[in-house]
Amino acid sequence: MEKVHNETEVQFLNLVKKIESYSEALALLAWDSRTGAPKKGMKQRSQVIGTISSEVFQLSTSKEMAQYLEDLQIPDVFHSLSEITQKTIQECQKVYDQNVKIPSEEFTEYVILQSESETIWEEAKDQASFAKFQPYLEKLVNFKRKFVEYRGYEGHPYNTLLDDYEPGVFVDTLDTVFGELKEKLIPLVKEVSNSKHQAKTDFLFEHFPKEKQRDLSESVLKEIGYDFEAGRLDETVHPFAIGLNPGDVRVTTKYNEKDFRVSLYGTIHEGGHALYEQNISEDLIGTPLCDGTSMGIHESQSLFMEKFVGQNPSFLEKNYALIKSHSNGQFDDVSIEDFYFAVNESKPSLIRIEADELTYCLHIILRYELEKALIGGEIEVADLPRLWNEKMEEYLGITPENDGEGVLQDVHWSFGAFGYFPSYALGYIYAAQMKQEIVKEIPQFDQHLLEGNYTEIRQWLKTNVHQHGKLKKPSEIIHDITGGGIDSKPLVDYLTEKYSRLYQLGK
Amino acid sequence: MEKVHNETEVQFLNLVKKIESYSEALALLAWDSRTGAPKKGMKQRSQVIGTISSEVFQLSTSKEMAQYLEDLQIPDVFHSLSEITQKTIQECQKVYDQNVKIPSEEFTEYVILQSESETIWEEAKDQASFAKFQPYLEKLVNFKRKFVEYRGYEGHPYNTLLDDYEPGVFVDTLDTVFGELKEKLIPLVKEVSNSKHQAKTDFLFEHFPKEKQRDLSESVLKEIGYDFEAGRLDETVHPFAIGLNPGDVRVTTKYNEKDFRVSLYGTIHEGGHALYEQNISEDLIGTPLCDGTSMGIHESQSLFMEKFVGQNPSFLEKNYALIKSHSNGQFDDVSIEDFYFAVNESKPSLIRIEADELTYCLHIILRYELEKALIGGEIEVADLPRLWNEKMEEYLGITPENDGEGVLQDVHWSFGAFGYFPSYALGYIYAAQMKQEIVKEIPQFDQHLLEGNYTEIRQWLKTNVHQHGKLKKPSEIIHDITGGGIDSKPLVDYLTEKYSRLYQLGK
Repeated sequence: MEKVHNETEVQFLNLVKKIESYSEALALLAWDSRTGAPKKGMKQRSQVIGTISSEVFQLSTSKEMAQYLEDLQIPDVFHSLSEITQKTIQECQKVYDQNVKIPSEEFTEYVILQSESETIWEEAKDQASFAKFQPYLEKLVNFKRKFVEYRGYEGHPYNTLLDDYEPGVFVDTLDTVFGELKEKLIPLVKEVSNSKHQAKTDFLFEHFPKEKQRDLSESVLKEIGYDFEAGRLDETVHPFAIGLNPGDVRVTTKYNEKDFRVSLYGTIHEGGHALYEQNISEDLIGTPLCDGTSMGIHESQSLFMEKFVGQNPSFLEKNYALIKSHSNGQFDDVSIEDFYFAVNESKPSLIRIEADELTYCLHIILRYELEKALIGGEIEVADLPRLWNEKMEEYLGITPENDGEGVLQDVHWSFGAFGYFPSYALGYIYAAQMKQEIVKEIPQFDQHLLEGNYTEIRQWLKTNVHQHGKLKKPSEIIHDITGGGIDSKPLVDYLTEKYSRLYQLGK
Repeated sequence: MEKVHNETEVQFLNLVKKIESYSEALALLAWDSRTGAPKKGMKQRSQVIGTISSEVFQLSTSKEMAQYLEDLQIPDVFHSLSEITQKTIQECQKVYDQNVKIPSEEFTEYVILQSESETIWEEAKDQASFAKFQPYLEKLVNFKRKFVEYRGYEGHPYNTLLDDYEPGVFVDTLDTVFGELKEKLIPLVKEVSNSKHQAKTDFLFEHFPKEKQRDLSESVLKEIGYDFEAGRLDETVHPFAIGLNPGDVRVTTKYNEKDFRVSLYGTIHEGGHALYEQNISEDLIGTPLCDGTSMGIHESQSLFMEKFVGQNPSFLEKNYALIKSHSNGQFDDVSIEDFYFAVNESKPSLIRIEADELTYCLHIILRYELEKALIGGEIEVADLPRLWNEKMEEYLGITPENDGEGVLQDVHWSFGAFGYFPSYALGYIYAAQMKQEIVKEIPQFDQHLLEGNYTEIRQWLKTNVHQHGKLKKPSEIIHDITGGGIDSKPLVDYLTEKYSRLYQLGK
């Protein structure tokens, strides 16, 4: 008996390793497609990606896999297995269930619709024509509603979609924390907008040579501890980080010679994602646990680096000379205080990806409320433009001139990614919770930034977040750090304190 | 019946497509590993390559494949198929036979030995210690001798190995053409060495900035017709060209600031390989026919571009101003005649990869004679250093000071690649045969180079060589161009005429 289940375990883990190998090949194909693969090879490239993806799908849902999962989950067997094997089994079971519950013809139809919709969305966005996109979005929403029925749900149907991105987080929790955020942030944003003390920012937009930005990005990545022997930095239109394995986590960035912040903060943001994956425990290599535990925790790592490190006054003080030496001299007469105020300027704006940290979560909450209601059948696709604009006015005091800069601005819905948006706001909330705890354990946090010494900070992040990969669920990560659950208070406190000071509120 | 074999054909072609998709992924993994993949990810990368390679092996030798091959080769069925399907079947049958005839345990042992030997060879070469490498090379040769027995052979056992690289070419033919080359080239090399008229070359080795070499490489690649929308140029230690599919054929080069010829001619050489694969007919995509037909024909395309185009006086005349404008001024006082003589200098040298076109084939013939005798059991590994040095003295009039610059210099034998070397010399022979024919059809060949107009030349190469991929065997390519077989005379004539003129022989 002992021998038999050992053999099953070995065979199961070999199958898992095979799936992970194919996934790494897919990650390289994706990276390559976005960093300079010749366009005339793309048609054949799709074939290659299609072949390997469908192999991964087939292995994940094979009879072999089903049998291993069944045999290894017999209680006596399961409890004799290591924690890594147990959680690998649970992860594979989850993927198996997701994939087998949806009838394959419907899924194929959906995949075709996804790629059509993305193309139509691009055109619709350019033409600011919601009518053009509406029938596609309606079909996508209908598919999603049906898929949720197939997969089953507890409480609200949206919970099932949330589970794809933020396992263990439900509508109830989001309603609470997002409600608190709204209550505090809407008036704060208004006060900031109305403050007479505003930042001077013209120097941010002067010419900053691309090659110099590249050097600056490399220096800053090295400073925060990104390991260039386990990664590389390339240029793309849409920056991203991608982990092939912990020894190969690649970052891309974008250079705008009229706004150096795009590359500086884009690089630090993606660098935060990359640090996470470079520091996952080697024990998890070859299993599906060798990945970030959720989109929200992943985003917390990028935002921690971007906001709590990169926009921190001590970081800027340490690096201002470096930034100046790479620039064309535009900061020579700008004090560090004015520079700090400028890079932390807050202003309500229409476009999410250009939003600052104070207004960002309101963009997300708006999307969350709309997509939750859509999936729940409380509103219909046709209602979206009107509701979008009403909420923009209510939360940020501004209204889009057209749907291109409104409801059509994001790509996510065009490929059916409902349930994804909340992760961005959760990332802010988690990051603020972590910041509150890390300074208790490392009171010299700011001093370390001033000295460019990240050893203790990185060690803390590795110990508490990075190394665990998917071994811990998001809620466990947060509980083990804070002793409690998701809490919006640290973020509200941080933003209130910071922006009251910057904009001299109540003075 | 009709329907049944149609279905079998469709299933067979789908299986072939799947194998080709995996092969494209392997090509990307190989390119990435050599162009900047982070070194800490390499251990896991080997797993990925191992998984996909073994999948390709299993699909190629599966019962499914065996059954399709049997069913589709029933004469009535076979003759009803398209030429592409027929040749695809033959190619798959060849791979199948190669792979199933060798017992898999022995093959695994051999693969492990290969990677050990390559590491040991590197050390042995650095230490110039043949004794260190000898036991590994002996094992490799024994494996190869056994594998040839398993696979069977006609005439000489070396024929089976030749077939892996140059199908349809046998020892008899090589003995004849290489014998003719030796007879003519050995005295010619002596005359050139003894000529009082020697080239002045010091200006070749002055500083040439890397960035400028890069620009020059790009310009020249564009000029000869390399399509940058179907490829890209990167930097590596060992330059290569690799085709993922005809829309994605990548080139790499190496920059030596003390010898610009390394990048200029390295780029043109790899560009020649790349032009071949960029111009394979789209009809062959997704089949094993979408590749160069042999190593020798592949090499003929790189050498045609490097030698008959790049070192041609008309090419140099056209591009001398461009080269000068990229350099640091070292050619300003050098006449085009002196420049042409310098880049075409010939001098016996110890290292194959640094040899010029006049002496190169003698390096190859030496290796061919040794490895043929080794596989035939006429000599033993222990005899190699002595025989190597004797032959170097006989063919080139020089003797290595140690085995590091002698018998240990090449990597090929260290991973068991016996039968590969002849392709290099065949490439020269084929290229010269093609050159002789192309000028009959395009008498303005030199004029075209002078004008940088490659349309007709590229069209000729595409029509006669490139488009066919593996649809035509090497001997068919040569026959359809020349009306005859492999012939060393065009190469001998070309070299005799060129070097007699350059070195003023017989004057």
